[in-house]
Amino acid sequence: MSLLIVGSVGIDTVKTPVEERFHLLGGAASYCSVSASFFVPPRLVGIVGEDFPQKHLDDFKKCQIDLEGLQILPGKTFHWSGEYFGEDLGARETRVTELNVFENFIPTLPSLYRQSQVVLLGNIAPQLQQHVLGQVERPHFVIADTMNYWISSTLPALQQLLKSVDLLLINESEARELTKESNLIKAGRTLLSMGPRYVVIKKGEHGALLFDHEEIFSCPAFPLEKIVDPTGAGDAFAGGVAGYLASRLNIAIKGDEIDKSLLREAVVYGSVMASFTVESFSLEKLHSLNTGDIEKRFQTFRRLSAF
Amino acid sequence: MSLLIVGSVGIDTVKTPVEERFHLLGGAASYCSVSASFFVPPRLVGIVGEDFPQKHLDDFKKCQIDLEGLQILPGKTFHWSGEYFGEDLGARETRVTELNVFENFIPTLPSLYRQSQVVLLGNIAPQLQQHVLGQVERPHFVIADTMNYWISSTLPALQQLLKSVDLLLINESEARELTKESNLIKAGRTLLSMGPRYVVIKKGEHGALLFDHEEIFSCPAFPLEKIVDPTGAGDAFAGGVAGYLASRLNIAIKGDEIDKSLLREAVVYGSVMASFTVESFSLEKLHSLNTGDIEKRFQTFRRLSAF
Repeated sequence: MSLLIVGSVGIDTVKTPVEERFHLLGGAASYCSVSASFFVPPRLVGIVGEDFPQKHLDDFKKCQIDLEGLQILPGKTFHWSGEYFGEDLGARETRVTELNVFENFIPTLPSLYRQSQVVLLGNIAPQLQQHVLGQVERPHFVIADTMNYWISSTLPALQQLLKSVDLLLINESEARELTKESNLIKAGRTLLSMGPRYVVIKKGEHGALLFDHEEIFSCPAFPLEKIVDPTGAGDAFAGGVAGYLASRLNIAIKGDEIDKSLLREAVVYGSVMASFTVESFSLEKLHSLNTGDIEKRFQTFRRLSAF
Repeated sequence: MSLLIVGSVGIDTVKTPVEERFHLLGGAASYCSVSASFFVPPRLVGIVGEDFPQKHLDDFKKCQIDLEGLQILPGKTFHWSGEYFGEDLGARETRVTELNVFENFIPTLPSLYRQSQVVLLGNIAPQLQQHVLGQVERPHFVIADTMNYWISSTLPALQQLLKSVDLLLINESEARELTKESNLIKAGRTLLSMGPRYVVIKKGEHGALLFDHEEIFSCPAFPLEKIVDPTGAGDAFAGGVAGYLASRLNIAIKGDEIDKSLLREAVVYGSVMASFTVESFSLEKLHSLNTGDIEKRFQTFRRLSAF
């Protein structure tokens, strides 16, 4: 099935206790798309400025990412700069957010894109996610990622969006913030009551929980001794989930219900892609992978939780 | 195989935001033994005062716990009182610890006990754990639990003990404290280098990790919406692990190596017993269980992490 991805495309500066790196490819849609591209060729909806390096466009093309929906406008590309702290880089401080061309981003989908069957609404303003989703004619499966900023600043728009979402991806602290429940199991069930049929709560080093109205799947975390750069882990997770589902969804939807075992596998593939992403800065590790590496790590996840 | 358990037996007062309960059966060995008793009849090594209620002795006997090693001395029984805070009772404050007869506890094992094949050294002073272990003639498998108090107050004795232990059980924050590693994967591997052939790091609502020198097993947590009383969860976990291993260990040891799939199952049974324990005060839930309940929850764990 076809996969549409919308989100930010940007240039990042990332500082860790070990190293500082400049002019990195960043943005939610970049991580989502490159991650998803190992499963299906995604359609990217985003915006960059004229300063956006040709090299990154070439890399996207090498990944078979459809760039018809990527606007290139006069001006500067979205820029984010952040610093991570602690041995496991668990704390983050944003230094700079320059929206630049992203500030006035109101995408109109190319006509082919309107037929997309799986839609991944990457982590951007919920109003923008809704605007994109509204242009897709009959989406089969809608996945949305979000973050604390949208919970605190645009809650009504986020709540409205959740009514149109099949699968919500959210991290542990954001799930607690959005539901006001400290118990994660209660939080997951409360999120289901807000609209999505499926919810994934991402717990970093503790793995992820997939909720539906009947059951819970506990996905382990890949045992990582060293994290180089956590940026984009959640986006790569989303891309892995969406890409795998899109690649299998012709057999995954039975009537109106999705095949739950495929959904579980999708969460594991999301975890695989996130675990690779944090092993290098930016998309460097993802760009070095082949499908054999991904399959091998998927099997490691299987062995990790088998009993 | 036979199972020896040593630890405290006490009377607890437990306060939660919802309720305060007095005169509860408590102590590491109580939880360990009752939990293990669903798998094998354990031998209990401990001490109580003459005030220890006959009802609790009768309950131990009903569980087929061998009490030959339980000394009853003039004086008062060990008493602990604590309070839990927060919705998930994640924070604990100890109000009272009265050692009473436990203060001068230097157990001499009954002769039959010296032949025990599996030994569970419950959470007491490492010197005392060592003293008991030294009296067992040829233990096949030694399991030790510990806590932050012993790491900070009697570290050399704990380090000495670890050299004689096959399986160490320790919680997340204690693992970090003992190894000075914030990354849990590094912490687990560092613990292995301190002596034990196997290490379990207990992560509460995030499950548990089993380490050996070759691989890691990630055991999920049972999804609990409500925790009534967290007291004894770690001890019940230890009892479930030790009891299951003792019940299967004639087939689990191949040469000098333990069957790893049985060890994984033991960690799941430990998690099953811990998950039941926190659903009521003291040992009330465990006393209400039958083996069918335990098997059913074990199967729920299987479904929880299957993909």
